[in-house]
Amino acid sequence: MTEPHKLRMGMVGGGPGAFIGPVHRIAAELDGKIELVAGAFSQSPERSREAGMRFRLDPARAYADYRQMIEAESKRADGVDFVAIVAPNHMHLPVALAALESGIAVMSDKPAAASYEEALELQAAVAKSGLLYGLTHTYAGYAMVREARALCATGKLGTIRKVAVEYMQGWLSGPLESTGHKQAVWRTDPALSGAGGAIGDIGTHAFHLIEYISGLKVTAMNATLRTVVPGRRLDDDCNAFLRMNNGAEGSLACSQIAAGEMNELRVRVYGEKGSLEWRHQDPNRLIVRWLDGPEQIHHASMSYLSAEARAVARTPAGHPEGYLEAFAVLYREFADALLTWKQGRANSPPATLPGIEAGVRGMRFIERAIESHRIAGWVEF
Amino acid sequence: MTEPHKLRMGMVGGGPGAFIGPVHRIAAELDGKIELVAGAFSQSPERSREAGMRFRLDPARAYADYRQMIEAESKRADGVDFVAIVAPNHMHLPVALAALESGIAVMSDKPAAASYEEALELQAAVAKSGLLYGLTHTYAGYAMVREARALCATGKLGTIRKVAVEYMQGWLSGPLESTGHKQAVWRTDPALSGAGGAIGDIGTHAFHLIEYISGLKVTAMNATLRTVVPGRRLDDDCNAFLRMNNGAEGSLACSQIAAGEMNELRVRVYGEKGSLEWRHQDPNRLIVRWLDGPEQIHHASMSYLSAEARAVARTPAGHPEGYLEAFAVLYREFADALLTWKQGRANSPPATLPGIEAGVRGMRFIERAIESHRIAGWVEF
Amino acid sequence: MTEPHKLRMGMVGGGPGAFIGPVHRIAAELDGKIELVAGAFSQSPERSREAGMRFRLDPARAYADYRQMIEAESKRADGVDFVAIVAPNHMHLPVALAALESGIAVMSDKPAAASYEEALELQAAVAKSGLLYGLTHTYAGYAMVREARALCATGKLGTIRKVAVEYMQGWLSGPLESTGHKQAVWRTDPALSGAGGAIGDIGTHAFHLIEYISGLKVTAMNATLRTVVPGRRLDDDCNAFLRMNNGAEGSLACSQIAAGEMNELRVRVYGEKGSLEWRHQDPNRLIVRWLDGPEQIHHASMSYLSAEARAVARTPAGHPEGYLEAFAVLYREFADALLTWKQGRANSPPATLPGIEAGVRGMRFIERAIESHRIAGWVEF
Amino acid sequence: MTEPHKLRMGMVGGGPGAFIGPVHRIAAELDGKIELVAGAFSQSPERSREAGMRFRLDPARAYADYRQMIEAESKRADGVDFVAIVAPNHMHLPVALAALESGIAVMSDKPAAASYEEALELQAAVAKSGLLYGLTHTYAGYAMVREARALCATGKLGTIRKVAVEYMQGWLSGPLESTGHKQAVWRTDPALSGAGGAIGDIGTHAFHLIEYISGLKVTAMNATLRTVVPGRRLDDDCNAFLRMNNGAEGSLACSQIAAGEMNELRVRVYGEKGSLEWRHQDPNRLIVRWLDGPEQIHHASMSYLSAEARAVARTPAGHPEGYLEAFAVLYREFADALLTWKQGRANSPPATLPGIEAGVRGMRFIERAIESHRIAGWVEF
Repeated sequence: MTEPHKLRMGMVGGGPGAFIGPVHRIAAELDGKIELVAGAFSQSPERSREAGMRFRLDPARAYADYRQMIEAESKRADGVDFVAIVAPNHMHLPVALAALESGIAVMSDKPAAASYEEALELQAAVAKSGLLYGLTHTYAGYAMVREARALCATGKLGTIRKVAVEYMQGWLSGPLESTGHKQAVWRTDPALSGAGGAIGDIGTHAFHLIEYISGLKVTAMNATLRTVVPGRRLDDDCNAFLRMNNGAEGSLACSQIAAGEMNELRVRVYGEKGSLEWRHQDPNRLIVRWLDGPEQIHHASMSYLSAEARAVARTPAGHPEGYLEAFAVLYREFADALLTWKQGRANSPPATLPGIEAGVRGMRFIERAIESHRIAGWVEF
Repeated sequence: MTEPHKLRMGMVGGGPGAFIGPVHRIAAELDGKIELVAGAFSQSPERSREAGMRFRLDPARAYADYRQMIEAESKRADGVDFVAIVAPNHMHLPVALAALESGIAVMSDKPAAASYEEALELQAAVAKSGLLYGLTHTYAGYAMVREARALCATGKLGTIRKVAVEYMQGWLSGPLESTGHKQAVWRTDPALSGAGGAIGDIGTHAFHLIEYISGLKVTAMNATLRTVVPGRRLDDDCNAFLRMNNGAEGSLACSQIAAGEMNELRVRVYGEKGSLEWRHQDPNRLIVRWLDGPEQIHHASMSYLSAEARAVARTPAGHPEGYLEAFAVLYREFADALLTWKQGRANSPPATLPGIEAGVRGMRFIERAIESHRIAGWVEF
Repeated sequence: MTEPHKLRMGMVGGGPGAFIGPVHRIAAELDGKIELVAGAFSQSPERSREAGMRFRLDPARAYADYRQMIEAESKRADGVDFVAIVAPNHMHLPVALAALESGIAVMSDKPAAASYEEALELQAAVAKSGLLYGLTHTYAGYAMVREARALCATGKLGTIRKVAVEYMQGWLSGPLESTGHKQAVWRTDPALSGAGGAIGDIGTHAFHLIEYISGLKVTAMNATLRTVVPGRRLDDDCNAFLRMNNGAEGSLACSQIAAGEMNELRVRVYGEKGSLEWRHQDPNRLIVRWLDGPEQIHHASMSYLSAEARAVARTPAGHPEGYLEAFAVLYREFADALLTWKQGRANSPPATLPGIEAGVRGMRFIERAIESHRIAGWVEF
Repeated sequence: MTEPHKLRMGMVGGGPGAFIGPVHRIAAELDGKIELVAGAFSQSPERSREAGMRFRLDPARAYADYRQMIEAESKRADGVDFVAIVAPNHMHLPVALAALESGIAVMSDKPAAASYEEALELQAAVAKSGLLYGLTHTYAGYAMVREARALCATGKLGTIRKVAVEYMQGWLSGPLESTGHKQAVWRTDPALSGAGGAIGDIGTHAFHLIEYISGLKVTAMNATLRTVVPGRRLDDDCNAFLRMNNGAEGSLACSQIAAGEMNELRVRVYGEKGSLEWRHQDPNRLIVRWLDGPEQIHHASMSYLSAEARAVARTPAGHPEGYLEAFAVLYREFADALLTWKQGRANSPPATLPGIEAGVRGMRFIERAIESHRIAGWVEF
């Protein structure tokens, strides 16, 4: 009887000062199925080594370059099973392509790539490789988002007629990028982020979430983008009308200059008979409202929830789970799919795990938003 | 020493089955300054008399026709001091004109008239008469709306850059008007309501409130209207982008098919340094958020509030006031202004009391929303 | 056909500076069935006249003494139908006795009297007179308190096993009475308030409410009282264990030194199958929790509510009602009962209107609380 | 340069079906400083091996007996650095003693032992060993509990005069233990749990938390315990009055038959100038109320928080952290202290990490509660 080894993860990006690197590490390892063993954390050799030390890695596996990491790890018997990409957006495509070409699966922070064209290129490469590709649209990992999705799928709300999603932040209310703030610098730099500012950074999360929960697709949009902070090079505030593939309509708003808001991601879906509401800042509750009955609060981990929601709970009811756990749900689904595939079965990730299609769609969203704003009118998807 | 009499009110509309008639009666009388003494509650003489009985009026003063009431009351020494108009929208203009022509002041349920053109006509009549005209944009009467308005005026939030207002109801999710439901019938009938459905019935409240609180004016709008329930003759769902006179932008949404929502009127105003949020369904609290300090909840009746908010409190902190009290604040301000004028001073209602300008603006809003929807693009105000 | 006159109310207490006088006036008149026509608002003739002016009364009916008022009004054809007692507690018994002896019904602010013995005396006088006696335990007038009471009565929660009620205020955190603050002075003076401080002023409300909602009676109590503010002459903070007549147990807490609390009255009732929670500061919602189903929020004015809750709604769902409306529900029930009696039928007030039994019970509660504290142990009721 | 190894953890208890085992594993490993490498997960060899497999351990290190584990691991060069005890309460003392005797540090689930006498014995053993001992009073690991503690310490609330803590659950509303439910069976069995039921299982958490946050000590208590569910062998509902060492008083309530409650742990501390409130089910917010200013909400991860609160945040503001992260804070502090000690420095765990004193105090609390209930009166601590 041999010890079942954990899946080995290599990380690209996430060096000192990064917020998202440690988050990916914690989330990946949380359920005990994945272990961070290697990384190209920074383009600076010292900084990459420093990050490796912090993550208690073998120093030999803290690389200064992702190509070097992929090459070296490919040759090791205990090389990485997959690469987690947490570098700025412009790196997403090249790293993913390099990994896929070396036969290594990919888990990528969103967006999938820096432009819609790049995303299509990546989609083709994923298809050609036959390898697993996951995209960490974190919010898809919350139990109550799964409950919302399951509830929409049952049809209990009736035909969906209206949606509203918003993602409000205030942290870019001032010209933070001019102070050298690392997060602000790359998120407001078109060369590193791509063509979308707020619309790309958080709008894509909102866009993904409304499609993920409602089960509908956006077919047309009318968006207005603004750059409120003088001198900023990308949009920081957006409002859009949406039209869905079943005729429903709705709105999407995102902002990074909504002073006083921390991270207000809020989704509402209205059907003929009732509606639901979920807020990221109150993530363990799903509000369900009916035309003719009391409002309901569905609480995480309760036995009355859908199988989909119960499947991702780790703690008993009333013991809150949060952002890291949601992230970890996606890594767990990724790990399970990867293990199944490594055991020789077909590569068939669960529908609940965002993949390259979600990635392409997210880039399409940014591209369409910018075009809609340009013509000041509706665009088709 | 003579007994200071109460102001005498005559009501037009508000007969049996009406929701808003009793609300106006309670609100008007709440502060002990006004007394309902006459009414043309219904076009049916029996029904008008029945309403008069219910309101414990002298039966001789329950009229079947507003013209008759105005004529008769004008001749009485103890005739009405003002008329409260609570009939369906198409009646607002003729009743108001008749009253003004007889030298009687007017307090009108919103909208001021059934169309923008009518509103302009009424505005001219008000100006010519020199009489007091008030418009019950109820939400303007809440203490915490006054607090929000005062806070914006101080500039503490910094330059306002973004606004968001929504008014969601679900009660028209089905074809209620086809069941004979009185409220639904007239609100969905263009002949009685005018050209706006949800946009007129509740969108105008949202529109008024965002201008009232922010102190800004909408200068352009891009609206999309829908009629979701088949067979309905007016819009029942709307989303709009707004542009304000200081360059701020934002959104306005209203719906009467948002199944499960009761009466979700919610306003947010974002400045450079902070923001505020008020919800009608939690009316005694104002949330104020800052870029760099704890979130604050301002509670009604507390001593730290603005003078404007403290002026309209009737109960101690923690003793909730609601819809009727907000309504009553407007009637109180109307009564105070009318008494002052009757004592021979100039007719100068307080800025906090919505008047004919607000009425004209509301009708302009509906007209512009419909035009914007027609051209699927931006319109100027 | 004669005009149905409104019931005529005379008020004792409520002069300039009083909070509760205007509240009673508004509440009494709110539903259009009662009219304030006379008052002995203050022992100072000028102040009483001043209050009468403010209430727009006939100056001749603003009396300086309640005995004088009762005598004069008794002789008028249009004399008062009932007296509302809003003076400090030590006046409650003498005024009520005087009214009853003159054949005038009584609506009294709580407590019914200044001591348990006085309350028993009053109970006997009410019984002897055959007249209507109402007690304004305000919270009993909220629609959602009625819903809670109705829900308990249905047995849907299962056998009630546990109760918890608390009433927290912070306004007496400092020695406010030493500044001459009118409300603070009489509430902390044993000669005016009786033997209970916080326990009498707000503890009795909590006590009444838990019995009113649960349908149970307290049979034993173990209370600990404190006077936290140095120099204060009555208790200002209390905790108690309760034992109910069905074997349930629970807790009651009240405080006026809970700094930062405004008026936090909160009730919870736990049965075998579920529980309910109501908070005065969020009065239009009732939270119902179940062992094995989603949490529910019952909203005021919705059609799914109990008949008892629907009976007291004045506004549509989502249009909040508050403290004044709750008060007014009690006056409405009082008026309806009084009118019925005046029409020659038996005096049978509805069970939902607190009466002299509630008054006796409230005084018993204070007396028992003080005794329990004295012996530092349980006392029987 | 050598790879800094992670601290090696051995677990006792936490086999298949256990809730708390995986929680400890995740929490311990979350910050990348600890690795689970061995365990005596169950007294059944197969079940222990099964758990080891699930945790992906070397099968040779999945032991059937904690003594065997401690002996074997003591001899390995890569043996465990500390033992995490997550077995039922009656095992806490023997396992801890065995580990300490072998020179191995201990992290124990609460309670420290099964009785006050045992706790004293353990305290002596810890002192004698000079080894690190931590107790996972989870709630002490929340950032906003740290903020509350820091706020009390600043004195900004003024002298603390009143406390209120409650911990309400409903999951034991029925005789769940008679169905074989593993969690219910051992928690209601005096042989496995000790003399306290709800008072021991969750009352101790409430007790610890109120002392932890307020910085005060309970000096006397008057408790009433009940066993509501027929046939149950331990208390399932409790109310207590508390007296603190500075003269403050307050209440503590805990229940496991509060049907409909999930895990309602709520703390309030009232000072002369203001008060605070924290709820476990809304853990990323701390409510602070003032006598004369707006209510404040302190949000996790914001820059205005105390150093103590900022030190334990892992995610940006608005990205909720929960139960696992709080647990992990305690493990991180434990790991940091253990590493420091292994590097030859004195064993000085931070004051924020509950240790054996907290354990002794918790057992004292249970013992005193039972005695107070027995005599139906106050007891000294």
